[in-house]
Amino acid sequence: MNSIKKNRLYDEFADLWPLVSAPEDYKIEAAYWRDALHAKLGPGKHEFLELGVGGGNNLSHLTGDFQATAVDISEKMLAVSRALNPNVTHHVGDMRNIRLNRKFKAVIIHDSISYMTSEEDLLATFNTAKAHLEKDGVLLVAPDWYIETFNGPEVSHNVRKNSNIELTFIEYLHDPDPSDSTIEGVFFYLMKDGKNLRIEQDLHIFGLFTLQTWTNLLNKAGFRVEKWPHPVHSDQKRAYLLVGILENSKNT
Amino acid sequence: MNSIKKNRLYDEFADLWPLVSAPEDYKIEAAYWRDALHAKLGPGKHEFLELGVGGGNNLSHLTGDFQATAVDISEKMLAVSRALNPNVTHHVGDMRNIRLNRKFKAVIIHDSISYMTSEEDLLATFNTAKAHLEKDGVLLVAPDWYIETFNGPEVSHNVRKNSNIELTFIEYLHDPDPSDSTIEGVFFYLMKDGKNLRIEQDLHIFGLFTLQTWTNLLNKAGFRVEKWPHPVHSDQKRAYLLVGILENSKNT
Repeated sequence: MNSIKKNRLYDEFADLWPLVSAPEDYKIEAAYWRDALHAKLGPGKHEFLELGVGGGNNLSHLTGDFQATAVDISEKMLAVSRALNPNVTHHVGDMRNIRLNRKFKAVIIHDSISYMTSEEDLLATFNTAKAHLEKDGVLLVAPDWYIETFNGPEVSHNVRKNSNIELTFIEYLHDPDPSDSTIEGVFFYLMKDGKNLRIEQDLHIFGLFTLQTWTNLLNKAGFRVEKWPHPVHSDQKRAYLLVGILENSKNT
Repeated sequence: MNSIKKNRLYDEFADLWPLVSAPEDYKIEAAYWRDALHAKLGPGKHEFLELGVGGGNNLSHLTGDFQATAVDISEKMLAVSRALNPNVTHHVGDMRNIRLNRKFKAVIIHDSISYMTSEEDLLATFNTAKAHLEKDGVLLVAPDWYIETFNGPEVSHNVRKNSNIELTFIEYLHDPDPSDSTIEGVFFYLMKDGKNLRIEQDLHIFGLFTLQTWTNLLNKAGFRVEKWPHPVHSDQKRAYLLVGILENSKNT
C-alpha cells in the first residue's frame, strides 16, 4: 500500500473537507461532549482547549456553551475550522508536544486522537492535555475504535455537492496486522465535475489499542477514567467517550 | 475515465465473481422470476434459454423447476456458471446475434441486459429472444435501472472471503451525461491477502432508457409487455421485471 500517498485530506484535499463531512453530521454526537463537560464542570461558559480540531465540525456545536481554543497540526484544516468557528482562537501545533502556557477547565480531543499510533504518542498527548489543565480539569477523548470494537473491514460512504463538484467519499478501514497497534484507512475521492469524474486515493494510518491500554496510559498520565457511551458509529454500542479526571494528588 | 480499463470483471477478474456476488444474494429475486415463468407457462419443467447468464447465480435457483440452456459472451464467466449449474448446457455467444436454431418456452435475461447501450442493441437482443421462442413464448428481462428509477450516484459494497483472499467490492454508479442513453459504473476491488492489500478499478458502461422506450422496443419486436414489480434494489419500488408475451399474429 506504500504506493498510495498519505494524509492528502489534510493537505491537498483540505478544501474538500466540507464535502467529506459537515457540521450537521456531528450534532447528535456533540451533545454527548456538551453533556459530559457540563456534568464534570458544572454550569458556566467554561474555557476548553481542543487538540486536533481538524475542520472544527464537532467544535461548531460547542462554541455557544463554551469558550474554546483550538489546535491542529494542519494549517489548511485550521483555515477550514477558522471559517466555521470565527470566535475561536486557533493555533498550529502537534498534540504530542504543543505547550500554550495556559490552563483550561477541559481539554477535548475528538477522533484526531486516532492518528496516535503508539503508546508513546498517546502518553505524550495525555501529558500535553495535563499541562493545559487546571486543578480538577477534565480530558475528553474519543478514538473511533478500540481493539474490542473494531471488526474490519468497515466501509462507509457519503455523497455531497457544492456549486462546483459532487464528491462521493468512500472510506475503507482494515487491519493489515492484528499483532500491531495500527489499522489502515483507504479513502477514495470520486470528484464529479459535470461529465468528468476524477478518482483519487489516500492512505491514513490509525492507532488501535485495547480499552485497557487507554485506561492504563490515562492513569499513568494522572487521570482517573470514566467510560461514557458515545454514539459515533451507526451501531451505537461500539464506541466510548473516555472522560479523564485529573487526580489532584498526582497533579499538585 | 478512459484511463480505467473496462469490463475486467468478466475477464481477468472472473475468478473473483463468487466473492463479488453469491447465489444466496439472488434467492429472493429468483422467486419472482420463477413465479412469473410459472404464471405465464403453467405447471411443468419447461425449457428456457438464459441470455447473458454471467456467473449463473440467478439461474442456480431456477434449475430445479426448469430445464435451462445458457449463453454468455464471456468464456470465463461461463466457466463459473458451469461449475455452479452443471446440468445446464452453456454456449458462448452475444445476446444481440446468437442463433442456436432451437426454440424454448421462455427466454430470460437478467441484469446483463444493462450492457445494451443503444436502442439498436436492445432491439437486436429482443429479436434474438423472439428467434428462440415457441408460439406463446415469453421473454423476461430486468435491467437494473430505468431513467425513471436511477437517481445517481449510487454506491454499494460487500465484503466476502474465501480461503485465499478477502474481497471488498465497491460499486459506484453515476450518469456523466443525462442526455445520452448510458451510465457509468466504476468498480473497486480491494483484495486483501494477509497483510497485503491490492486495489484495482474497473469501468463498466450500462444502458439507461425510459420504461416507455423499453416497452416501445419490445412492442416493435412483437411482444406485448407486462410490468411486474421486481425487488432488485434495497428500495423495493425501484425496479420492474418486464414480461414480454409473444403476440401470435406477429410471430407467425
